[in-house]
Amino acid sequence: MKNRITELFGIEYPIIQAGMIWCSGWELAAAVSNAGGLGIIGSGSMYPHILEEHVQKCQAATKQPFAVNLPLLYPSIDEHIETILKYKVPIVFTSAGNPKHYTSTLKEAGITVVHVTASLKFALKAQAAGVDAIVSEGFEAGGHNGKDETTTLCLIPVVCDGVDIPVIAAGGIASGRAMAACFALGAEGVQIGSRFVASIESSAHDAFKKKVLETGEGDTKLSLKKVVPVRLIKNQFYEEIDAMEKKGASPQDLALHLGRGRSKKGMFEGDMDNGELEIGQIASQIKEIKPAADILKEIWEEYLATCTKMGKMV
Amino acid sequence: MKNRITELFGIEYPIIQAGMIWCSGWELAAAVSNAGGLGIIGSGSMYPHILEEHVQKCQAATKQPFAVNLPLLYPSIDEHIETILKYKVPIVFTSAGNPKHYTSTLKEAGITVVHVTASLKFALKAQAAGVDAIVSEGFEAGGHNGKDETTTLCLIPVVCDGVDIPVIAAGGIASGRAMAACFALGAEGVQIGSRFVASIESSAHDAFKKKVLETGEGDTKLSLKKVVPVRLIKNQFYEEIDAMEKKGASPQDLALHLGRGRSKKGMFEGDMDNGELEIGQIASQIKEIKPAADILKEIWEEYLATCTKMGKMV
Repeated sequence: MKNRITELFGIEYPIIQAGMIWCSGWELAAAVSNAGGLGIIGSGSMYPHILEEHVQKCQAATKQPFAVNLPLLYPSIDEHIETILKYKVPIVFTSAGNPKHYTSTLKEAGITVVHVTASLKFALKAQAAGVDAIVSEGFEAGGHNGKDETTTLCLIPVVCDGVDIPVIAAGGIASGRAMAACFALGAEGVQIGSRFVASIESSAHDAFKKKVLETGEGDTKLSLKKVVPVRLIKNQFYEEIDAMEKKGASPQDLALHLGRGRSKKGMFEGDMDNGELEIGQIASQIKEIKPAADILKEIWEEYLATCTKMGKMV
Repeated sequence: MKNRITELFGIEYPIIQAGMIWCSGWELAAAVSNAGGLGIIGSGSMYPHILEEHVQKCQAATKQPFAVNLPLLYPSIDEHIETILKYKVPIVFTSAGNPKHYTSTLKEAGITVVHVTASLKFALKAQAAGVDAIVSEGFEAGGHNGKDETTTLCLIPVVCDGVDIPVIAAGGIASGRAMAACFALGAEGVQIGSRFVASIESSAHDAFKKKVLETGEGDTKLSLKKVVPVRLIKNQFYEEIDAMEKKGASPQDLALHLGRGRSKKGMFEGDMDNGELEIGQIASQIKEIKPAADILKEIWEEYLATCTKMGKMV
């Protein structure tokens, strides 16, 4: 398959594995890139020397292109960028912040830059900042999310009509059917997070991977809206926050109860009660932990079968 | 096109116009049915004698099948059912309540019964109650909504895999692209509300129709979650409720402020400040008030073009 996304990244399939804190280190990124997709190292949960180690290991494990996800509000962002430049990482996905400043720095170094947004408004700002492509992420996505709560089905057509650069759909995609649906809406690639959390190569704690398999319909919720909206599994920590919110707790009180290190505690250390467990609604469709390459192959084959079926519906 | 939905209803296109309070009377239903889709009279905002009048007028205006939407918690439901039986309305869409009791009454009279739900759990209950098809409605839909907040993209594949009867997708659909996306996910029909609110034949107040055209990205929100979740345009009334919710207002206080007749005041009488304005997220894509037949034709043609494009993507 050739389209603007496969050409832009130099990959075989327009399937991107999302950069995710605590879940997507070099092993997952290399596995996805080796299988023909685009693997992404999630740098948001890494100290600068940890990112350097992951980039080195990823380069040793694959000759294919891979990317680093860079949250623009990360405190040591300059050190992360130094690592990216030093090791000539070819592609960077920026998120959670204003793309205006860092896009030009990265582009000047010859890096392909993609920005993750949850609205057309910010997609247009990213396009103006010079990024090469947009990830448009809907309300159903796991982890941090936009304030507008626009779902993938409503977001993708609006962004595709509104920008000239290619659009990668994210949020609610864990199957080839959903990939085909997003392509019908105008996307030229998909970014998949939750499905790859439950992969062999994901660095998530085993207890969290198993929890993802058990997550059913209605078991996640967009929480902490007064602080930063984040989709979580409804565990004990979520219930505590929910009870505070229903009583009208202030952003300060909520941030205090959140504290520091909750996501590490949950997703990396395996505390299923007190940790922050970030996953998308589509977890309800994930039934098995598999090698990343198998996941990618299944999605691609179902995508092809769905497109064939659609062509026959006319 | 022939599939289980067109066969079940005896219609040309698997496009259903949602039954909506204050917006879908006989004129809209007849226009959609005459154009080859399935029109639905929304009985939830009608006194029994008003429904009778609308059914009579609809029968005079079209020889094609049409349906009545019946909210199962409607206080005078027995009188509504009497009207449905008396005039031999061929199809009933039930919603907002338990389908267990009334489905058999309707089925015994030879009526095709469809139930509207927002989860697989309730879709299975409706199937067990004997309904002929399911409408699965995602979080992005306008008006009353489920507690799980599952989006259409996440909901449709799960329901299609879980039930044996055909599934009609709803929520976030106002174009042929979105229709194709839902068919890729496994749906065999689409139910479209918001797009038909902004039609010539809709009984919505002109001020509300115009308001729908002005509704942009992020301008609707699922509100009143402690009472009954409902997606509203963010107007003065919404802001009042939102401020109360942020301070931890009780369900009783919220219900008191909601009071009675808010939806009529907004959608039917045109009070854009104090009325309840129910519309879906997809309103941001609606740019023109048109005849219902033109809307249906455009959606169908874009659907066909999208399927053709998808078939060529393999």
